[in-house]
Amino acid sequence: MLVPMQKRVKNHHQKSPKPSAPKHAPTLYGAHAVREAWLNPARDVQALYLTPQSVRGFEALLQEAQARELKRPSVTVIEKEALERILPKGAVHQGIALCASGLPESDVQDFIIQAHGRPRTVLAMLDQVTDPHNVGAILRSASAFGLHGVLMQKKHAPLLEGVLAKTACGAVEHIPVAQETNLSRAIENLKDEGFYVIGLDERGEQTIGKAASGSLPDRIVLVLGAEGGGIRRLIQENCDVLVRLPTGGAIASLNVSNAAAVAFYALAAGG
Amino acid sequence: MLVPMQKRVKNHHQKSPKPSAPKHAPTLYGAHAVREAWLNPARDVQALYLTPQSVRGFEALLQEAQARELKRPSVTVIEKEALERILPKGAVHQGIALCASGLPESDVQDFIIQAHGRPRTVLAMLDQVTDPHNVGAILRSASAFGLHGVLMQKKHAPLLEGVLAKTACGAVEHIPVAQETNLSRAIENLKDEGFYVIGLDERGEQTIGKAASGSLPDRIVLVLGAEGGGIRRLIQENCDVLVRLPTGGAIASLNVSNAAAVAFYALAAGG
Repeated sequence: MLVPMQKRVKNHHQKSPKPSAPKHAPTLYGAHAVREAWLNPARDVQALYLTPQSVRGFEALLQEAQARELKRPSVTVIEKEALERILPKGAVHQGIALCASGLPESDVQDFIIQAHGRPRTVLAMLDQVTDPHNVGAILRSASAFGLHGVLMQKKHAPLLEGVLAKTACGAVEHIPVAQETNLSRAIENLKDEGFYVIGLDERGEQTIGKAASGSLPDRIVLVLGAEGGGIRRLIQENCDVLVRLPTGGAIASLNVSNAAAVAFYALAAGG
Repeated sequence: MLVPMQKRVKNHHQKSPKPSAPKHAPTLYGAHAVREAWLNPARDVQALYLTPQSVRGFEALLQEAQARELKRPSVTVIEKEALERILPKGAVHQGIALCASGLPESDVQDFIIQAHGRPRTVLAMLDQVTDPHNVGAILRSASAFGLHGVLMQKKHAPLLEGVLAKTACGAVEHIPVAQETNLSRAIENLKDEGFYVIGLDERGEQTIGKAASGSLPDRIVLVLGAEGGGIRRLIQENCDVLVRLPTGGAIASLNVSNAAAVAFYALAAGG
């Protein structure tokens, strides 16, 4: 269809009305992830986005933040469609999203200092585990089983937000994560402080249950490698012991977050 | 731009060449899932699709199927783009896909008959756990820890293919799955045959480690509920005991596949 010149010119000048875009892009979404970040005093929160349907469910949280005297912005009520325009495609947001500053960073030295104040410290180290769903689930399990920190490599480390934080169900607020340039050096630092380094590997000489039933030192680092490759050779050589899970059959390996959960249980529950 | 009438007519008649679509849509994809299905004699295989890059890695599998005298079709080499047109969007296919018949169905009576031939039988039952990633990971862990079968509700049950089979990493070929219309009735049938029914629930009166350290019967069903809701009331009431995982802190619950892995370990490894 031919459009008369006048109309075309008019259209050219008349810009389509732009929806007023939120100033801050959300870094966190999903009920649990947002809830825990909202109540985390270590977080600066710039914006909280709620769809009209989710406002009511969040009221108690607003009051709780007030009672705790947390500095929090007022709520931005936003339609579902508008929220989805500022979130990653396919994000399972449950009508709730938050824009917040990142978490304070930890490093291996922090973990060592903290260990001095505790009777027992269990840390996890992720070697080449970078899938955000897996890392999120691992942080959740680490928190649930009372681990004291998780170390991972700075290079290729996934951001502690978005789908990772959603999968972690709020655990990113509770378990400190140290991102290290050199994991081998971090292991050496930990060993110097009496940490016993357990690598989880299917070629392990004993089962984790057997290892845990003996008298383990009060300071433990559990090293987990990526599915397929496992723990890299140099890091393996730095482990005090390699242990395996008591699996068998045609499909003997577990998803890495499942393996981590079992190992955390075995170490935390002592068998 | 105006198109001359003659050209328009010509375009209308001249249909764009259609790519020759593969006759069979793949039901399975990913290296492990396809590998195990390819070697499963219970499967009829209609087509195997490999991208040019993945042909070489599959050669040993072709020979193995031949050596086992499995009736298998010849390979269809297909470009990545064409493969992705016949797979679900975003499928992580690793250049490998398979069209195969479904697996033979099991039911609770099969599980009971099989139990008669074994010194010990451990089954899992999924109540309202339907997310294909979770169910896939649970089947993988169930297989790795030597469980003998998984029961789930027929209604809303996810298909044992696609992303579920990919996540299960081939375990759908190794662990029988029974889809039951009525899970409560299935529990009753199992109890009649001496099965002890353990429900995993955070309100459980004792930890699973404590329960497993006692002398458990030789026939066990472990019931797992969905995250959030947990096991439904009627099914809970049918459990002989409710046990919990020894978790704590602000984020005390695990992802359901992680919880399942820990429970399978605790029961299989006896602690």
